[in-house]
Amino acid sequence: MQLAKVIGTVVSTRKEDSLVGYKLLVLEVQDPGSASPHSERLVAIDTLGAGVSETVLFVRGGAARINLSSPAPIDAAVVGIVDSVDVHR
Amino acid sequence: MQLAKVIGTVVSTRKEDSLVGYKLLVLEVQDPGSASPHSERLVAIDTLGAGVSETVLFVRGGAARINLSSPAPIDAAVVGIVDSVDVHR
Amino acid sequence: MQLAKVIGTVVSTRKEDSLVGYKLLVLEVQDPGSASPHSERLVAIDTLGAGVSETVLFVRGGAARINLSSPAPIDAAVVGIVDSVDVHR
Amino acid sequence: MQLAKVIGTVVSTRKEDSLVGYKLLVLEVQDPGSASPHSERLVAIDTLGAGVSETVLFVRGGAARINLSSPAPIDAAVVGIVDSVDVHR
Amino acid sequence: MQLAKVIGTVVSTRKEDSLVGYKLLVLEVQDPGSASPHSERLVAIDTLGAGVSETVLFVRGGAARINLSSPAPIDAAVVGIVDSVDVHR
Repeated sequence: MQLAKVIGTVVSTRKEDSLVGYKLLVLEVQDPGSASPHSERLVAIDTLGAGVSETVLFVRGGAARINLSSPAPIDAAVVGIVDSVDVHR
Repeated sequence: MQLAKVIGTVVSTRKEDSLVGYKLLVLEVQDPGSASPHSERLVAIDTLGAGVSETVLFVRGGAARINLSSPAPIDAAVVGIVDSVDVHR
Repeated sequence: MQLAKVIGTVVSTRKEDSLVGYKLLVLEVQDPGSASPHSERLVAIDTLGAGVSETVLFVRGGAARINLSSPAPIDAAVVGIVDSVDVHR
Repeated sequence: MQLAKVIGTVVSTRKEDSLVGYKLLVLEVQDPGSASPHSERLVAIDTLGAGVSETVLFVRGGAARINLSSPAPIDAAVVGIVDSVDVHR
Repeated sequence: MQLAKVIGTVVSTRKEDSLVGYKLLVLEVQDPGSASPHSERLVAIDTLGAGVSETVLFVRGGAARINLSSPAPIDAAVVGIVDSVDVHR
């Protein structure tokens, strides 16, 4: 699981049928406790209603398909909206 | 899930029987909202008819095998053709 | 499996129902036998009671879901608290 | 899926019983369309008879176990021998 | 699959019950045919009796759990002790 900032959205009309209805967010991975943004960006589905500029917790791989009602080709999903991160250094 | 630009195709005649019939595209990973291309390139199957120079959404790992009609050794698949990416920075 | 130092915690109230009750730790990956900290940070669940500044052993991917009592979208978990690391170089 | 050049072989006599009989190739990952070799090297099983210096298509993870006749601890497999790569840049 | 040199061991007494009895080795990933050691280090279980300074073949992910007698949260395992690596460059 990693933290990321929601920085945008993706629109795709020609896609796998099983992906219809999923909101696709552009995420920018963040290193918790670090001021500098991580360079990696990816696309994840969101079922929690996360908005642009919010910090979210997301998962990759099979974990992203655990809560799907029917099988879909998804390998990244937002699983939480973050209230606070407490880092001790 | 990540965005990528289709930059080519791969031809392989001696291959696993279960791969026969799949179109193999060369993808160049793109960072959404960034002008510079990502350095990573990979090969993915495509069942949507994506063409060279189109921007696509692809998945890795088990997600790439979710929609197969029969088991095949595939770990990357195009799952959408991208109309637009909206990044707020 | 990798070693990491626990450096913090994450609080998320709006999240997948199946994640309720899991403690979320911020981990900093460590190279065993190396003095310099690894740059990567991630979030993992913890069911062993690991505290901040402790060194832990964690897993990624499906391994993180092996011991769950019910399915949850988790891709990283602390599986041991490390007593000692013996590196011969 | 990625492209790689076969650059060698590995011999291991003390190994998991389920690995007996598999040919182990050393692969060097290649960026299609790029002249410079990728720095990553790995070991993959080969059931297609790929020879040293040939360019192959390989998969990682669970995909590498899709075509096994019995379960074996394998996470990389050659799935095709490449005839040609056509990259438009 | 990758090659690695065994460089140490990890001791963890407070851990998941299903991990009890597994030997935990510290591995340093090696690029076959390259003199310089790879920078990545990780922890893997070993059931073959590999010793410090030996070169081993290891797997990651679900492959590491293929040969377990009962489910355990493991994502890396030594699967062979390497006799020789033959690289043609």
